[in-house]
This record gives sequence, C-alpha cells and structure tokens, in this order.
Amino acid sequence: MTTVGILGGGQLARMLALSGAPLGLRFLVMDNVADACAGQFAPMVVGDYRDESALAEFASRVDVATFDFENVPAESAQWLSDRVPVFPNPGALATAQDRLAEKTLFRELGIPVPPFAAIETRADLDAALAQIGTPSILKTRRLGYDGKGQFRIKTPADADAAWDALGAQASKVGLILEGFVHFQRELSVVAVRGRDGEFRAWPLTENWHVDGVLSASLAPARVDSALQEIAYDYARRLGEAMDYVGVFALELFCRDGELLANELAPRVHNSGHWTIEGSETSQFQNHLRAVLGLPLGDTRMVGLACMLNWIGEMPDALPMLREPGGHWHDYGKLPRDGRKVGHATLRADNADALAAALARVGEALGRQAQVTPVVARLRG
Amino acid sequence: MTTVGILGGGQLARMLALSGAPLGLRFLVMDNVADACAGQFAPMVVGDYRDESALAEFASRVDVATFDFENVPAESAQWLSDRVPVFPNPGALATAQDRLAEKTLFRELGIPVPPFAAIETRADLDAALAQIGTPSILKTRRLGYDGKGQFRIKTPADADAAWDALGAQASKVGLILEGFVHFQRELSVVAVRGRDGEFRAWPLTENWHVDGVLSASLAPARVDSALQEIAYDYARRLGEAMDYVGVFALELFCRDGELLANELAPRVHNSGHWTIEGSETSQFQNHLRAVLGLPLGDTRMVGLACMLNWIGEMPDALPMLREPGGHWHDYGKLPRDGRKVGHATLRADNADALAAALARVGEALGRQAQVTPVVARLRG
Repeated sequence: MTTVGILGGGQLARMLALSGAPLGLRFLVMDNVADACAGQFAPMVVGDYRDESALAEFASRVDVATFDFENVPAESAQWLSDRVPVFPNPGALATAQDRLAEKTLFRELGIPVPPFAAIETRADLDAALAQIGTPSILKTRRLGYDGKGQFRIKTPADADAAWDALGAQASKVGLILEGFVHFQRELSVVAVRGRDGEFRAWPLTENWHVDGVLSASLAPARVDSALQEIAYDYARRLGEAMDYVGVFALELFCRDGELLANELAPRVHNSGHWTIEGSETSQFQNHLRAVLGLPLGDTRMVGLACMLNWIGEMPDALPMLREPGGHWHDYGKLPRDGRKVGHATLRADNADALAAALARVGEALGRQAQVTPVVARLRG
Repeated sequence: MTTVGILGGGQLARMLALSGAPLGLRFLVMDNVADACAGQFAPMVVGDYRDESALAEFASRVDVATFDFENVPAESAQWLSDRVPVFPNPGALATAQDRLAEKTLFRELGIPVPPFAAIETRADLDAALAQIGTPSILKTRRLGYDGKGQFRIKTPADADAAWDALGAQASKVGLILEGFVHFQRELSVVAVRGRDGEFRAWPLTENWHVDGVLSASLAPARVDSALQEIAYDYARRLGEAMDYVGVFALELFCRDGELLANELAPRVHNSGHWTIEGSETSQFQNHLRAVLGLPLGDTRMVGLACMLNWIGEMPDALPMLREPGGHWHDYGKLPRDGRKVGHATLRADNADALAAALARVGEALGRQAQVTPVVARLRG
C-alpha cells in the first residue's frame, strides 16, 4: 500500500486523489485550513507548511510527496525531501517560485522570453524602463503575501507610483520588470516527465483569461503542428534542465507566429483539466504515475475539448449536464469572489459540434462572453 | 451540499463516490466491516444493516440513499425509505433479491426466461424435474447466508442429493428449480432510468464467466443491432414495471439467436465497469444523476472496450499501464481467494487494436486463458 502525500489541499489535490484511487493509492493531504476541499475525499494533516511538527507527522505517514500548490516554502520542501522522496524536486520548485530564476532559465535554454530585468533599486527601475520600454509590468519575484505583487507601468511617468507600490518588496522578495507582450494568443503545453526521463505532452492548449484568471481552454489549440513541436521542444528542455519529475505546464504567448515563454507551473495545471475526459490519460493520473515511477499513460486526445472555469460561484449545472459531451466538476468549495470553485469540460468529435455545444451552454447560462472567443476560434 | 448515502462499502460504493465527487456530492457509506474499501475515500458508518441505531445515524446524515449491495435486508431498506428517499425503491430491491419473484416478473412482462418452478416440498422437486428435465439447477430463492445456495442436478438421480443439500432452506428462504440453458453467449444490458422515467442503456456487453464469477466483458457485444434493440426493450419494460430509478443490469443468455433473461442486478454492475473509460458517461455517474433527479448523461461508447476482472489478488500492473488504452482499477482491498480485488479496462479505436492489446497483456501476465475467448470474438 502506497500513500502519496500532497502539500496543499485544493482542487488540484482533490483531483489527484480522485484520479489516483484507481491505482490503489492512498492519499494524505496537508493544508493550513481544515476545510480544504481535497479533505472531502482524503485524510488531512492540518498545519502551516512552516510548522515542523506538522510536516514531521505528514512525512511519517507518506511514502512519497508532491504538491498541489507551488508556493510551499522552499525550505519546507527541502526539509521534507531529506525525509521522503519529493517530486518535483525542491530545486525545480524553487526555480518556478522565482520569476527571475525562471526567466533566466528560459533564456539560458534558448527559449525566447519577453524582455526582463532584475530590479533591486529605484535606479535599476529607471535603467530597466529605458531599456525595456513601456508598457511593462513591475512584479515581485515571488508571491507576495497579500497577493498584490504586480504593477502595470503604462508610461515612464508611472515609475514613481510603481515604486511606491512595490519598492518596499525589493529587499524582501525581490522585483522584476517585464516587458509587456502584445500577443495574439495565449497557449500552454502541459507535459509530464517520468523518473526515468521519459517525456510526454498533451496537445497544445489555447487559453483565454479574464482579469488575469483562466476563463476557458481549448484543446487541441488551432495552430499548425510545427508550432506545437516547438512548444514540446521548449518543455522537454525545461524538464531535462530541472530534472523534473511529474506534470508541469509552460505558459506561452504567441506573437506573430513566434512563441515566447511566460511562466512555468510546477504542478498539474488548470489549462490541463480538460485531459480528464479529453485524453486517454489525465494530467492527474500521469502526474501520479510519474511520481511513483510507473509507466506514463498515453496523452492522445479523445476528440476535442473545451474547459470553462467557474469563478466565484457555481453556475446552474443543468445546461452542461444536458449536453451529451458535458462533464461537470464542482470542487465542493464555498462560493467566494475570485475563487476557482469548479469547471466544466465539453467534449465533441469535431469543431462544429463543439462550437454548437459551447454556444448552447453560453446562451443557457447567460455566459456568452465566456464562450464567444472559443466559438469564434472553432469557427474561424 | 448533498450527501448521498450508500448501503454497502465495496468497490461499487467506492467507484460511485469517485465518480460522484465531480458533481459536488458528499458521500456516507454504511458497511458492517470497518475496512470496507469505499471507506478509503468516503466517511463511513460501521454497523449491521439490521442495526436500527446505526441505520438511524446513517439516515440522519444523508439526503438520499442507494445501494452498493442488493442483499440489504428488505425491511432495512423499507425502514430507511420511511425516513429518506431511497433509490432504487425497496420494492424493486425485494423483487431482485428473490429469484422466484424476479423470474415471475420476467414472465409477466413477456420476457423469455428459462423454465423454472417454485419448490416448497420434496414432491414439488420431483414434479418440477419431470416437467423441466435435466440438467437443471436447484437454488435458494434468496442469498443463503453461507453463500452456498446452488446445486446442479445432472440427472434425476441427483434429486436426493440436491434435497439433502438445500431442502432445509425450502421453509426458510424458499427454493426454485431452473432449467439449465445451453447458451452460446452471455450478454448483459446495463441501463439507467431517471426519476422522470427517462430510460437510457449502454451498448450490449458480452460477458465471460469462470467458476461463476465474471472474468471478462467486451463492449459493444458483437451482435446485430436487432438483438440489442430486443435487450433494450426488455430492460425498458423491467424498469417501468418496477418504477426503477438508477442503474440496473439485466443478464441475458443468448441461445440460437434468442435472448433469455437470467438475472436482474438492482445496482451498478461489474459488466458495466468498462463505461468509466469506454463511454461518455460512466454507469456510476449516471446512477447518481438518476438518483438525484439530474439529467442522464450520454451512454454512447468512446471506441471499444474490454474489461478484465482481477480475482483473489492483483496481477502485475505494468503490462496494462504500458498499453496506450490501458486503465487500471485497484480497489484497495487485501487479497483473498475468490474476492474481486480490481479490474482493468482496455480501450481501443477498433477491434484489431483491441485484440492485439489483449493478446499482449494476456501473454505478459500469463493470463492467456482469460483473454483468449475475447480475442477470438474480436477476430471472429
């Protein structure tokens, strides 16, 4: 009997547990809140990730550990990895937690990135703005505790306001200035790498965001296969460079037919939720297979799929349940502004059928704005 | 928040909970053993089904109740249904628990059945043997507590031995004599009926048994569509007659192109496990949708599927995990002779690919005997 420990007890942990149960696995989830939604289907250790006694209890009860949440403190991941196998490795986690380290790695590996510069002082910001130009975005290198770690600089005159907002963070978590990319599409490649280095990826996914939060994903992305191969190549290089084990997502901007790396998520990813029904093997099961050293499952698609995210509160389920290819995912969370509370995936055999189903659901739910860009892409 | 109570905590309850989680449901399982495998993913009430205080606790914590196990005492189901909605209804459960009532219903509905007769006395047995002939099988009408409720009568001379073995049960649970059917195929139709009477069924499935236990299922069965329509019609009649809500399976013998009803299972069924990966909606989720009055999901297949049952102990998982269409289901049970501990489903786009995958897995596991009849059917 193998018990997989998961740091973080949100919907990703929940879906990992649900997809790992058929492998005969048991799970133990650690979260700092007792009502984390994964706890509805897996036992929990409730405690702060920095609480060594909670971590020790967690470590004593699991055979291997992984993450639902990438902002587990790097020291906690390291402490844990001295006691049980941890995948992905804490180094990979640390890289992905730090926008500067991540973008530096992209650059080192020859993966195109938008212009960026490390910012330590007010003078650095001026110099970087002169070089990178505007619009650009000043960000904390790591997640800010208040979640407000970004300031958009539209013109050089905004520099003072940006420094007022974030300058105090420069010495704490560090800052980075990133050039704003006028992209046409946002894409992601969700990939998995085994303990033996085997690499697989699901078809490229196109994503639409609203207010910075994923709203819809379409797979396969309607791009030519050459672009997909480039994305796979970038993901493969990253996986090897970090000696990564498990699923990760590389978010990409597509600008004038060129791919630019935006961000790496060292975990199963919202833009891969469609793989539950839309692929032979879901990202969740393949993550577990990788972490456990089992053979990786097939990543081929079964038809086309579109995922719609439900933010804040769940909409009426009926229009989606009435769709032949409609699949509902309620994370069992209480409603809260901005919270990811669920998603739905529509699967269909062809683009016309998927577009029609999306249009019906959008209409029935009064969510035309959410489905319209996807429908347009499918019919375009 | 809706909590679904499940009487019985085996693999069916486990798979119900796993497939119902995405609907935002919570579960409560009741079983008389504390280590029932559904308890790994759902909270439990441990108690005998006849223990009114345990039943009362169970009832107080659920919004609706259903079954993983059809031999819950009819009085317990009735007691429960006076307190919470119970689907399927206790009457349907009672009918399916009683071979005589079940076969009488088949006959009343014009569904062909093998010859049968109620046996109350030794003289009844002689009379029934004279009418039905041999080989035939003397069975208890209800599940015997020792699980040994059948005696095969090869020639009339076996009547004394049969009566010695089962005669004492005649006054307790009742007996039935059934004519033995020389069938060519065993088929099953897994169907679902909603609270509003909507009826859907998955494609007909062919089943192979070893020592009376399901060994392999193939869907869709390689039969002509007219036969499937007849099977659907029988299932529909049964569902309506019992005012059934939820998933049920009708096991059928196919003899010289004619279908004979064998048995009705008032629950999700082993021959429908392939629906998890092989159909747009699994039998588990559709059972829950039915029980909750939600729209029923599409029962169309996604490719072809073959399920292999694992009895006694789990085999090596690797050959199946290496197959692109291989899906593993370990129920998290301890090994035990004759126990259903897991299954695997192979999915493929065409019969040749499925046959080849089955042959590879059978060879790798040294289980050629289990896969050979399925491979022969696919290649036949």
